[in-house]
Amino acid sequence: MENRPPDSSVTGDAPDASVTADAHLPPLDEQQVNGLREVGRKWAARMPDRDGLERVLPVDPHLTYLVDQPAPRSVFVSIRSQSPGDGDPEDIETTPRAGAADSTLGRAGYRVRRALIGPPLRSTAIAEERMSRLLALPVLSPDALSSVAYGPEAMMAVLVLAGSAELKLSLPIGAVLVVLMLAVGLGYRQVIRAYPHGGGSYIVAKDSLGPTWGLLAAAGLILDYILTVAVSVASGVAAITSAIPSVTSATVPLGLVVIAVLVCGNLRGVKAAGALFAAPTYMFVVAIALVVVVGLVDSAMHGFHAVPPPPRHATEALGVLLILRAFSSGATAMTGIEVISNSVPVFEPPEADNARRTLTVMIALLVSMFIGVVVVAYLEGIAPGSETVLSQIAHRTLGSGVLYAYVQIATTAILLIAANSAVNGFPRLLYFMARDWYAPMAFLRMGDRLAFTAGIVVLAVPAAIVYAVFNGQTEPLIPLFAVGVFVAFTLAQSGMVAHWWHHRERGWRRALAINLVGAVLSGAVAIIAAATKFVEGAWLVVVLIPLIVLACLRIHRHYQHVHSQLMPGADATLAVPPARPSSPQSDGDGHRPSPEEQDAPSEIEHLVVVPVAILNLPALRALAYAASLQVPVLAVHISPSEEEGKRFHRYWKAWGAYLPLEVVVSPYRATVAPLANYIEALHRQRPDVTLTVIVPELITARRWESILHGRIAERLRRILIRHEAIVVTSIPFHLK
Amino acid sequence: MENRPPDSSVTGDAPDASVTADAHLPPLDEQQVNGLREVGRKWAARMPDRDGLERVLPVDPHLTYLVDQPAPRSVFVSIRSQSPGDGDPEDIETTPRAGAADSTLGRAGYRVRRALIGPPLRSTAIAEERMSRLLALPVLSPDALSSVAYGPEAMMAVLVLAGSAELKLSLPIGAVLVVLMLAVGLGYRQVIRAYPHGGGSYIVAKDSLGPTWGLLAAAGLILDYILTVAVSVASGVAAITSAIPSVTSATVPLGLVVIAVLVCGNLRGVKAAGALFAAPTYMFVVAIALVVVVGLVDSAMHGFHAVPPPPRHATEALGVLLILRAFSSGATAMTGIEVISNSVPVFEPPEADNARRTLTVMIALLVSMFIGVVVVAYLEGIAPGSETVLSQIAHRTLGSGVLYAYVQIATTAILLIAANSAVNGFPRLLYFMARDWYAPMAFLRMGDRLAFTAGIVVLAVPAAIVYAVFNGQTEPLIPLFAVGVFVAFTLAQSGMVAHWWHHRERGWRRALAINLVGAVLSGAVAIIAAATKFVEGAWLVVVLIPLIVLACLRIHRHYQHVHSQLMPGADATLAVPPARPSSPQSDGDGHRPSPEEQDAPSEIEHLVVVPVAILNLPALRALAYAASLQVPVLAVHISPSEEEGKRFHRYWKAWGAYLPLEVVVSPYRATVAPLANYIEALHRQRPDVTLTVIVPELITARRWESILHGRIAERLRRILIRHEAIVVTSIPFHLK
Repeated sequence: MENRPPDSSVTGDAPDASVTADAHLPPLDEQQVNGLREVGRKWAARMPDRDGLERVLPVDPHLTYLVDQPAPRSVFVSIRSQSPGDGDPEDIETTPRAGAADSTLGRAGYRVRRALIGPPLRSTAIAEERMSRLLALPVLSPDALSSVAYGPEAMMAVLVLAGSAELKLSLPIGAVLVVLMLAVGLGYRQVIRAYPHGGGSYIVAKDSLGPTWGLLAAAGLILDYILTVAVSVASGVAAITSAIPSVTSATVPLGLVVIAVLVCGNLRGVKAAGALFAAPTYMFVVAIALVVVVGLVDSAMHGFHAVPPPPRHATEALGVLLILRAFSSGATAMTGIEVISNSVPVFEPPEADNARRTLTVMIALLVSMFIGVVVVAYLEGIAPGSETVLSQIAHRTLGSGVLYAYVQIATTAILLIAANSAVNGFPRLLYFMARDWYAPMAFLRMGDRLAFTAGIVVLAVPAAIVYAVFNGQTEPLIPLFAVGVFVAFTLAQSGMVAHWWHHRERGWRRALAINLVGAVLSGAVAIIAAATKFVEGAWLVVVLIPLIVLACLRIHRHYQHVHSQLMPGADATLAVPPARPSSPQSDGDGHRPSPEEQDAPSEIEHLVVVPVAILNLPALRALAYAASLQVPVLAVHISPSEEEGKRFHRYWKAWGAYLPLEVVVSPYRATVAPLANYIEALHRQRPDVTLTVIVPELITARRWESILHGRIAERLRRILIRHEAIVVTSIPFHLK
Repeated sequence: MENRPPDSSVTGDAPDASVTADAHLPPLDEQQVNGLREVGRKWAARMPDRDGLERVLPVDPHLTYLVDQPAPRSVFVSIRSQSPGDGDPEDIETTPRAGAADSTLGRAGYRVRRALIGPPLRSTAIAEERMSRLLALPVLSPDALSSVAYGPEAMMAVLVLAGSAELKLSLPIGAVLVVLMLAVGLGYRQVIRAYPHGGGSYIVAKDSLGPTWGLLAAAGLILDYILTVAVSVASGVAAITSAIPSVTSATVPLGLVVIAVLVCGNLRGVKAAGALFAAPTYMFVVAIALVVVVGLVDSAMHGFHAVPPPPRHATEALGVLLILRAFSSGATAMTGIEVISNSVPVFEPPEADNARRTLTVMIALLVSMFIGVVVVAYLEGIAPGSETVLSQIAHRTLGSGVLYAYVQIATTAILLIAANSAVNGFPRLLYFMARDWYAPMAFLRMGDRLAFTAGIVVLAVPAAIVYAVFNGQTEPLIPLFAVGVFVAFTLAQSGMVAHWWHHRERGWRRALAINLVGAVLSGAVAIIAAATKFVEGAWLVVVLIPLIVLACLRIHRHYQHVHSQLMPGADATLAVPPARPSSPQSDGDGHRPSPEEQDAPSEIEHLVVVPVAILNLPALRALAYAASLQVPVLAVHISPSEEEGKRFHRYWKAWGAYLPLEVVVSPYRATVAPLANYIEALHRQRPDVTLTVIVPELITARRWESILHGRIAERLRRILIRHEAIVVTSIPFHLK
C-alpha cells in the first residue's frame, strides 16, 4: 500500500477522526518530499545559471500598497509570523470579502448565500463551533428518540394480525428490544472509549476489520441517512396534514420546503443548527414523560389491571415468523443510536467524556420512553388503528384538551427535525470516507460556515427525490429502513470485538463481552429484517449496499492510480519515461521525455501556434504576445477558399509578415476540426515539443452579445486541451 | 457610414446577391490595410533587430511528411499555385476527413451527420449545385401553387356567410385577385431584371428605400416563412389524419417528424432537396388540370349553365367589410410568389433569364389553376362545408375512384412540401441580412453540404414550436398569414418604383408603371388584411414586425461598435489610448497603453502567475513551463490555514524555491475567489503589465472521473478571462 492516503491508518493506532479545514491538502510523506528534492536537483543540474530565474518582479507580490492601508472594505490583510525567528516569509491573509466572486451574478449569489446562512466563519472557529452536552443531546438524539413515536406502533401493528389478544406479546418482545438497545448503547460507549477522537461504524469497522468491511458499514449508514430524512419528513408532514386536511394536496411541496429549511439550517453550521432544533427534542421528552406518568398513575388506581384491548379477528396464525416480523419492525426504534459516536469532535472538550455521558443519557431516555410507551399501551388496552398509538394513549390519559395538543405538536416537531441528525451525520461520514479516498474529494471541503456543503447537498437531493417519488408516504419506506442500520451496528460491534482482542487493554474481557453480545444481537436483527421484509423492499437495500461499496472501491482505485501519476517520488515518475514511437521527422532521439513528463525548464522546447482568422486587433495582439515570448512562433490561417487564402497572404504582407504563416485551405468550410487536426499533425512531427496554441477570445460587455460572435475560441480550447502536450492560452480582448 | 459592412452598397449599384463560402471573412478596405501597415511599422520601429523574430521552427509547417505521402485516409493534401510566378507560398488543403472532430462523441456525431445528410461538398461545388428550370420550378413553387388548395376556399368561406346566393361574387373578387397576381408577378419579373444576381424584397427595399425599409420587408418575410412551414405542415397532416382517422392523436408528433424530414432534406443541400420534392409539384399541377378540364367539359355539355349551390341562410349582411374580408382571405393564395426572385443564384446560368422564365411559368400556372378552381366551383355550384372545396370538385368531376384518390394524395403531398420553399428561402434571406450585419454572423456559414445550417435550424425550431403550440391546427394561424407577406410585396414593389425613377434605363416608364400598380395593390391588401383580421391575430404580426426590425438594428449597432474596436485603421485605434488612473505604485508613466492596446511585441511587459495548490507533477510542470518562458514568474499558494501555509513553505524549500512564492492564507476556505481577487490586486498595481496565469488542468481518461477532481481550473479560467488584460494559459496533464 505505497500510495495509501497519507493519514489512513493500518497500524492499529486510533486514527485521527477530527475534522480539519485543510484535509484536501494533506502533508507529504518522506518519499514525496524526496521526490520534490529530486525534481529540484534536475532544475539545478540543467540550469547552472540559477540567477537566470531570479528576475525582478514588476509588482510587489505582498501587495504592500493594499495591506498597509487596511480599509474597512479591504480584501487582504498582512499576517506576521508569531515567531520571527522561524524564517518563513510573511504571508497575507484574505478577509471575508475576498470570497465574493467578481461578477454581477456571482455577487448576487454571494449576497443571497450570506442572507440565508450568515457571514463566513474562520477555520479557527472550529473549536468555537463545539456543543455543550445540553445542546448536543437535542441536536444528535432526535433520530433515536423520535422513533419511540413509531417503533412500538410498528411492532403492535404486526402482532395484531394474530388477533388483539396477542398484543400482550409486545411486553416480552419489547423486553428483548430493550436488551438490544442496552447492548448496542453500551457497545457504542466502548466505541467512544476506544476512539476518543470520534469514530462511527465506518471508522471502527475499517480500522479493525479492514476497508471493505468499513465500506459495508458506511453503505448501510448512507442508505439509512437518506431514508431517515425521507421518512421523518414524511411522518412529520403527515401529522401536519392530518391536523389541517386542507393542505393535504400540498404534501410534496411542503416536505420539500422542510428539507430546504433543514439544508439551510445546517449550512449555517453545527451550532446554529443546534439552537434551531433544541427546543422540540426537550418538548417531546416532556410529552412522553407526561403521558407515561399519567398513564401509570391512572393504571395504579385500577390496581395495574390491564384493560382488555378492543377485540379484533386474527388474519394470520401466530408463529415464529410473525413474532420475528414484529421484532424487526419494533427494531426501527433503534435507528440513530450511532450518531453520537460518529460526532465526538463536535463536543466541547473533553470530547470523549462528554460524548459518553450524552450517549448514556440518550440511551436512558430512549429505553425509559420505549418501556413507558409499550407498558402504558398494554395497560390501557390500546390496539393500533387509524389513530396512532401515541395519540390514543394521549387521548386516554390527557383527554382532548391543551395537553393532548401539546403532545401532538411535540411529536410532529421532533419527527420533522429527526432528519436533522442525519443531515448532521451524513456529511461527516463522507468526510472521513473522502479522506481515505473512498468518496470524491469535494466532501473534504468545508463551506464558509464550516459546514460540509457538498455532503449536505448530496444527502438532501436523493432524500428529496425519494420523498417526492413516494409522494410523501411513510409506509412503503419502512421495510427499507432497518437493514442498513443494523448492518452498520453489526460491523461496528464486530470491529470492537476485534479491537479488544488485539489490544487487550485494562478490562478488555468485559468490553469484548459487551461488544460481542451487541454484535451477535445486531447481526441477528439484520438477518431477520432482511429475510422477513425482503419482498416488501429490503431487497433494494440488499442490492444497493454492495453497489455502493463497489463504487467506493472504484473511486479509491482511481485516486490511487492518479496519485501514483501525480506525486513526485511515486515510482512511475522516477523511472525512465517509456520510449515513444519516433516521428517521421524525428532525429532519432526517440528517448526524450514527452512534454507532460518534462519538469525542468531547460527540458522544454517551445513552439507557439497562433490561429488567425482575420487580421484584426485581437489577432494582432495575440501575435504580439506570442512574439514577445521569444520562442518560435507559427501563425495558421484556415481559409474557406483558395481565393480568400490568397487575399490573406496579401494582408499578411501588408502587415509586414514578421512571423511564419501557413494557410490551410478548408474547401469543406469547417474551421475548428481542421485546425485541431493541423495542430495535432504538428505535434506528431515532434512529440517532444511543447505546443502552445494562443487563441484570441472576444469578451463582450453583455452576455447576450456573445451569441453574435460564435464560440470558436471555446470549442477550439475544449478540443485541443484533450490532446496530450498541447497548452492552450486564451488571450482576452474586451469589448467596451 | 465609415464602418459599414464592406460590401453593403449604398451607391445604388446592384448589390452582389450571390452566395459565397467566405462571406464571414470579407476583404479589407483600403483604410484597414493601411491600419495593418501602421501596426507593422510599429513592430519594425520598436524592434530594429528583426532577425530576433525569425527563429528556426522546430517543425515543418507545410507538413511535408504527411502531404507528400498521400494515403487514402490522409487529412491534408498540398495545393500548388496555378501561376508559380505570383510569389504566394504553396498552401495545404484539407480533405473531407479533416472535418471529423477528434473525440469519440464527436466522431459518432460526424458519422450520424454523414449518414443523414451525405458526404461534405467542396465550396467550388456551389456552381454544380445549380438547378435547371425543370427542377427549379417544383423546388421553388410549391408555396405559391399549393395555396390554390386553400385560397379560393378561404374566400368562399367568407362569402357564404352572406348566404350561398352571394357565392357568385367569387368571380369578380377572383378576377381582382388575378389582376393582383399578374401585377405582383410582373413586378417580380422586373426585380429579377434589375437585380440579375438575385434580390428579394429585402435587398430591393434596402437598396432603393434604405436599410430600415429593407428590414421591415425582411421582418414580414421572416414571419411569413415561419408561418408557411407551420400552416403547410398542419394542413398536410390534417389531410393525412382525415384519411386515416386512427392517427389523429399523433397529429403533433407526425408534424414534427415532417419538419425534421424537411430539415434533413434541406441540410443535404439544394439540389438533393429538389430531387426529393420535384414529383409532388407536377402531380398537383396535373391533378388540378384534370379536375378543371373535366369540370369545364362537363359544364360545356350543360351549356355552361351554373348549377345553383345548396341553399344556406345568411348569418351576416353583405357589405363592403365582408367583401374586403373575402378578398384578403383569398389573397393567401399569393404567398410564395417572391421566392424565385430571392433565389436567382440557385439557377443554372444564365441565372436571371432562367429565373424570369421560371417565374413566368409559375405565375401562368398559378393564375390558370386559380381561375380554373374558382370558375369550376361556381359552375358546379360548390359551397364550402365540412369537405374541402377541392375535394367536392374532385368528387363531382371524377367520382370517388382512383382519380379522386390521386387528386387528394397530390394535394396532401404539395401541402406538406410547400414548407420546403420556406426552408429554402429563409436561410438565404438571413444570409443576406447577416452579410449586412443585421443578423448574427453565424448565418453566413455554409454547412459541409453547402446549405445554411444555422438558418435552416433557426427556421425549423420556431415553426415546430408554433405548430406544437397550436396543436397542429390551421384555422387560428390563417389570420396571421397575409400581413407579413404583403408588407414585403409592397416594399419590394415600392423599392422598384424608386429604382426605375433613379435609373431610367430603357423602358423605365413601363417598368415603373407595372411596379407602381403592384405596390399600390399590395399595399392596399396589406392594410385590408391587417385591419379586417386585426382582432383574430393580425395584431401579433403588427407587434412582432417592428420588434424584429429593432432587434436587427440593435445587432447592427453592436457589430458596428465591435468593428470600430477590432479593426486596425478604425479611428479608435489610431488615436492616443485614454490615460488610465495610475496605480499607487506606478512610476508616473500613466500613459502607457493598456495591455489590450499593445500590438507590438516590445511594448508587452510580462508577469506569469502560477497558482499552486499541491506541489505535484502537474504543478511542477506548470512551474517549469513558466520558468522556460524567460519572463518573471510568481507562484501563489492559497492556503486554508496558517499551519498548512507553513507546511507549504517547507515543501517549497525542499523543492529548491527556484521561484518567488506568495502564500495567501484564506481562513474562510474559499479558493477561487481569493485567488482571482489576488491576481486582480496584482493587476491594479501595474495595469500596463500583461499577467499570464498558468492553470494546470487535470484531464481524466474517462469523463465521469472528472467529477472526482473538482472544476477549479475551469472556474478560475471563467472568472479571470473576464478581467481585462489577464491571459489564461491552460496546461493540461493527462491521466492514463
